Amino acid sequence: MNPQTTVRVALPQTPYDIVLGSGIRRDAATYFAKWTAGAKHAVVITDTNVDGRYAEALAETLANSGVETDVCVVEAGEESKCVDMADMLWQKLVQCGCDRKTVVVAVGGGVVGDLAGFVAATLYRGLRFMQVPTTLLALVDSSVGGKVAVNLPQGKNLVGAFWQPVGVLADMETLQTLDDRQYRAGLAEVVKYGVVLDREFFEFLEANVAKIRAREEAVLVPIVSRCCELKAQIVLEDEHETSGRRAVLNYGHTFAHAVEKLSGYGVVLHGEAVGIGMMFAAELAMRLSPNDGQKEEIFLRQQALLRRLEIPYETPAIDRDAAISIMRRDKKAEEGTIRFILPTTLGACELREVPHLERYYR
Amino acid sequence: MNPQTTVRVALPQTPYDIVLGSGIRRDAATYFAKWTAGAKHAVVITDTNVDGRYAEALAETLANSGVETDVCVVEAGEESKCVDMADMLWQKLVQCGCDRKTVVVAVGGGVVGDLAGFVAATLYRGLRFMQVPTTLLALVDSSVGGKVAVNLPQGKNLVGAFWQPVGVLADMETLQTLDDRQYRAGLAEVVKYGVVLDREFFEFLEANVAKIRAREEAVLVPIVSRCCELKAQIVLEDEHETSGRRAVLNYGHTFAHAVEKLSGYGVVLHGEAVGIGMMFAAELAMRLSPNDGQKEEIFLRQQALLRRLEIPYETPAIDRDAAISIMRRDKKAEEGTIRFILPTTLGACELREVPHLERYYR
Repeated sequence: MNPQTTVRVALPQTPYDIVLGSGIRRDAATYFAKWTAGAKHAVVITDTNVDGRYAEALAETLANSGVETDVCVVEAGEESKCVDMADMLWQKLVQCGCDRKTVVVAVGGGVVGDLAGFVAATLYRGLRFMQVPTTLLALVDSSVGGKVAVNLPQGKNLVGAFWQPVGVLADMETLQTLDDRQYRAGLAEVVKYGVVLDREFFEFLEANVAKIRAREEAVLVPIVSRCCELKAQIVLEDEHETSGRRAVLNYGHTFAHAVEKLSGYGVVLHGEAVGIGMMFAAELAMRLSPNDGQKEEIFLRQQALLRRLEIPYETPAIDRDAAISIMRRDKKAEEGTIRFILPTTLGACELREVPHLERYYR
Repeated sequence: MNPQTTVRVALPQTPYDIVLGSGIRRDAATYFAKWTAGAKHAVVITDTNVDGRYAEALAETLANSGVETDVCVVEAGEESKCVDMADMLWQKLVQCGCDRKTVVVAVGGGVVGDLAGFVAATLYRGLRFMQVPTTLLALVDSSVGGKVAVNLPQGKNLVGAFWQPVGVLADMETLQTLDDRQYRAGLAEVVKYGVVLDREFFEFLEANVAKIRAREEAVLVPIVSRCCELKAQIVLEDEHETSGRRAVLNYGHTFAHAVEKLSGYGVVLHGEAVGIGMMFAAELAMRLSPNDGQKEEIFLRQQALLRRLEIPYETPAIDRDAAISIMRRDKKAEEGTIRFILPTTLGACELREVPHLERYYR
């Protein structure tokens, strides 16, 4: 067994562990057996990027431990996170003999996790589901909290469920093979946690830019586990996004979704869009409180950190009116009023309803 | 307000009421307001059979009370309970401006309830959902317990969720306009409750065949509310089908699903298939315990009651091996062993695992 760090997501009904470690994917069979109480059938869902690199070997590990293991591979990219692909997977899983005790194992980034999770949440009204995130974005974001979904032509993540995994196996080694663009996109979500929830963590990031860029494990393990802890705490307080507390995690996301939509899905990576959206939100906070020096400080320090981490932060040439109109149709909007998470001081934020957004952009 | 009877489904997280009464659909706006705390937007989902008869008027009632109301009409019939139709509805709901506070109102039989419920359960990760069942089957079965689903080409109800409504409005008048075949098909589920859960209720049915056939409200109200009570109690004990208790409601259903599949969906109505499946199960109980007189009594009394109520009970000419193979792939089957709910004495039943079903049919 490889050394590991564990973050507990202590949900009352469906608690689970996120186990982080280097090379820990090789212990997948042990964790699978532990988390599923010895399930006999697994379906590994992965994509064409991750299949040869990690998923195939992981499926073999499971098979060698006596678990009957099937593998479904989808085309890499956001385009696969759609209803048709979910339909294809539902049918494939039925055809390969899944029953209610089958466990879905998602090996890949956010797209694979969201898609496989949605399929698991709905097939036979719910199959167990284990996650093996292989991107930074998936590690710090989509593998915590049980939000699973597919996109519609009208927008991202419009169809989905809350469905918690039985466990998350986070192999830090997978971060070493991630391409630069994906890695930096994931860092945008990391910075997000600092801005809205944890000033100390933000300052830790500021102080460790070189090590983060060099992907040194000595900083990556504490960074990823801190993000998971912060997210787990928020999810505990508001599992189903009913109290509003969970909305803090959407910092930067309302504008990000509009950017992704207007640029065409997959052109701008989700994490990149989040970086851009965070700058939009920090700027909006300044516009709403023009005389508040703290807002300017947040804007500048956030911008500087994003820039030093080589995360895109400038809004691409998109139509601002179109963006506002898309934000109004966001599933978090209500009756035309757009809600934004806006930073108050560094490490804290608030939910602000902005009924007439266009007024601030004349 | 019309007089009414209320059955409480006292689920700890999501309790709700089933309100039964004659003409009570005319009070839809009052119940909608009460159950949704004054939601401002409703989408009525219905089918081509029910639209002109009830749904249109109900939508008007809601609109007149100040609720912005859209209507989506799907083709009547089991064929509509599919992924493509769910996809069409998801998109339509987004296009007509739904937000997270929108309430889906299902007006129709089991197909509409299951489909609209699944769409509600998954759009924006869950919209509230009110049911107005208009068939006997929907009243006594699909409107209690929160099982929502669509079919796949490989089988019925394979994709779905547990999603409880905020309330069920059961207008007994709708039973008067139901066509004979639909009405009798619904009675099969009514008889089911008696056989597996309540001897006294079974005997009440035996004693009131003429009144039931004449659709007299004096017997229909106690019958429907008793079925809802029985089902609500079981659902309370095992909301998510984890303890096995809820399986009693599947009496007759394993074989019924095979009958529906082999005959082609929609050829045999679900309730008709359930009647046939109940006879298969009662016969299987006899074959497993050939010297037990009680099994024979159940078989004969069940057959007699079904016959007197003009419910089909004879197995159509289907391929028995094909049926067994389908039952093995049922989502309730595990590792090839088929589980059946079999009656023990009249009004009681047990879950039996039958690993080699074909042996009893040589």
